[in-house]
Amino acid sequence: MDAASSRAAQRRRTEARILDAAARLFVELGYERATIRGIAQQAGVDAGLVMHYFGSKQELFRRVTHASPAQVLSGPPEQVSEQILAMLADTLAHEPVQSLAVLRSMLTHPEAAQATQEGAARYRAQISRSIPAPDADARAALVSAIMLGVIVSRHLLKDDALTGASPQQIIDLLRPCLHFLTGAV
Amino acid sequence: MDAASSRAAQRRRTEARILDAAARLFVELGYERATIRGIAQQAGVDAGLVMHYFGSKQELFRRVTHASPAQVLSGPPEQVSEQILAMLADTLAHEPVQSLAVLRSMLTHPEAAQATQEGAARYRAQISRSIPAPDADARAALVSAIMLGVIVSRHLLKDDALTGASPQQIIDLLRPCLHFLTGAV
Repeated sequence: MDAASSRAAQRRRTEARILDAAARLFVELGYERATIRGIAQQAGVDAGLVMHYFGSKQELFRRVTHASPAQVLSGPPEQVSEQILAMLADTLAHEPVQSLAVLRSMLTHPEAAQATQEGAARYRAQISRSIPAPDADARAALVSAIMLGVIVSRHLLKDDALTGASPQQIIDLLRPCLHFLTGAV
Repeated sequence: MDAASSRAAQRRRTEARILDAAARLFVELGYERATIRGIAQQAGVDAGLVMHYFGSKQELFRRVTHASPAQVLSGPPEQVSEQILAMLADTLAHEPVQSLAVLRSMLTHPEAAQATQEGAARYRAQISRSIPAPDADARAALVSAIMLGVIVSRHLLKDDALTGASPQQIIDLLRPCLHFLTGAV
């Protein structure tokens, strides 16, 4: 490896460390209270370097929360219900920092609010398509609202009774609700 | 009315106008982004007067969000489910600024987070008591998470499909979920 590619590899590692620190602080504190100084400190670098690499807190937030392509839901209602429950179980087990960083700030930061609304609308449209009922949109919106409430309560508000329950227990309790709302029963 | 009691009445009216403006800005912007200056402007008074009457933004927030005694849920599961649905219908119809001001900031302001957690714990304990199942706490926590998700999605994230549905339609769709989770069926 020559000196230039070694420096490029070093820079990528440092950028990754900064993005990781930024993700953790955005999840913990939200956009407004996370600072470039705090992120630099967590990453073990100088605040000037963070600015040099990313330019602004807004750009760091964009990089951390940049949406991955949403998983596609399809099939008859019962199958879609099970796909939703499987995604929820995964989210409950793994605390995805990318989406939690958006959710932490969804109520107070315009960019996070917009990302949440767009994500919820895409998700809702996929669910709605599979529901054979005239009020499919309202049903899909309730499924989406329930997922939001459960994820926020467990990962961000740290509700004792939910952090104490297993993902499997939670999805087993929610299964009848989802089957009813999606029209699978 | 003598001059002193007239001045006292005038002060109470001004305080009420400031509290009303503060409530609206806390709901709209959250704790961090609502400013004394903005609240004063909305109330049509000088920022110095807001500080003179209330001392700090923190005290204004405390006054706006001061918890009213929570409604007591009691009875067999089916009755408790109906009480929860009635409270939800009321919240969906009336946008209670006091609780929305807390919810807007629950993810980013420590005082609002604590108020939300305490409120949710009280609510959950009441629901849990009425559920005749060994996993009553997890079931009650899910009911509480569902209510949170629906209220936040409709009033704060302004989900189209939920703002377009009537409170009655929403609670009719949620009824089977609540009856299942509380063990009423």
